Amino acid sequence: MEKWKTIHSEYHYKTPFGNLRKDTCQMPDGRVIDGYYVHEYADWVNAIVLTKEGKIVFVEQYRHPANDLFLEIPAGKMEEGETPEEAIIREVREETGFISEKKPICLGEFFVNPAVQTNKVISFLITEAEQLVEQQLDETEVIDVHLFQLDEVEGLISGKQLSQLFSVSAYYMAKDHFKKATVK
Amino acid sequence: MEKWKTIHSEYHYKTPFGNLRKDTCQMPDGRVIDGYYVHEYADWVNAIVLTKEGKIVFVEQYRHPANDLFLEIPAGKMEEGETPEEAIIREVREETGFISEKKPICLGEFFVNPAVQTNKVISFLITEAEQLVEQQLDETEVIDVHLFQLDEVEGLISGKQLSQLFSVSAYYMAKDHFKKATVK
Repeated sequence: MEKWKTIHSEYHYKTPFGNLRKDTCQMPDGRVIDGYYVHEYADWVNAIVLTKEGKIVFVEQYRHPANDLFLEIPAGKMEEGETPEEAIIREVREETGFISEKKPICLGEFFVNPAVQTNKVISFLITEAEQLVEQQLDETEVIDVHLFQLDEVEGLISGKQLSQLFSVSAYYMAKDHFKKATVK
Repeated sequence: MEKWKTIHSEYHYKTPFGNLRKDTCQMPDGRVIDGYYVHEYADWVNAIVLTKEGKIVFVEQYRHPANDLFLEIPAGKMEEGETPEEAIIREVREETGFISEKKPICLGEFFVNPAVQTNKVISFLITEAEQLVEQQLDETEVIDVHLFQLDEVEGLISGKQLSQLFSVSAYYMAKDHFKKATVK
């Protein structure tokens, strides 16, 4: 199976949160696809953050596209020049005030949605976190921090209080990581 | 915590694959956010499909935004008037030729990315599938079907051959489902 060729690209917009590109592509058999929209984003990072007491740290905020409040794990985009580890440590500190002396454990690196967008999300597990600093939010961010026991999370998922895919996905990866760590 | 009000909306484009809207919003404290892009999509469905022999069915296709070939689980968007179950049965049949007499088991329903887009993905587990019909692909779709043993999947994930988030996420949910089913 072969890749397509891009014959022409034009930008609809560029913003700090992402760019929208419209491509004209040629398939390997010569057919032309006119108008494939590509959403360009920087890579994202997120983390399951466990406190020293073994609780899991969630953030709650209003998400305009889905028009509701969402419980999620801390997350954000990588800034220019940052490693994924640096980005997640910064995001967790800014959104929640939690920091840890332990190095983040990488759970995996995945293309978010390669049919529509360009970027990956890199998921981490951060353990032994403590809330030692103040939240530092962007001008339009309003974020509440909530702590739950680890064994309450599956009830939140089945009860649909936790309904954002990235958060659920990272939780299951972390759970799998704990099981493997216990088995060893 | 309160929701934002939408003061003004305009569409940049509408396509059969999704629409792009630009909103002007007012925060609860009165501040105005000008130019929040909202990606409107129909809800998506996907499925972990197990064959009668216990293998898992993957599809491989070129994904232009990430400029590479991707191994994924069968997936697609719900059409007008379809239930999620009807949509996933249709998508699996069209993309792979596999059908099953068993009812799809719902693994969960999640907002894909509520900070950016409007839609949910509903994940299913389909068991005892057999490849009894021909693939029926859209005009520009080129899809190869691959079967793997269930115990090969984690090697595909750690080896980055399986790197699309939805597929990995549904695999872990299905794995959790098997464990719970075995414990009962």
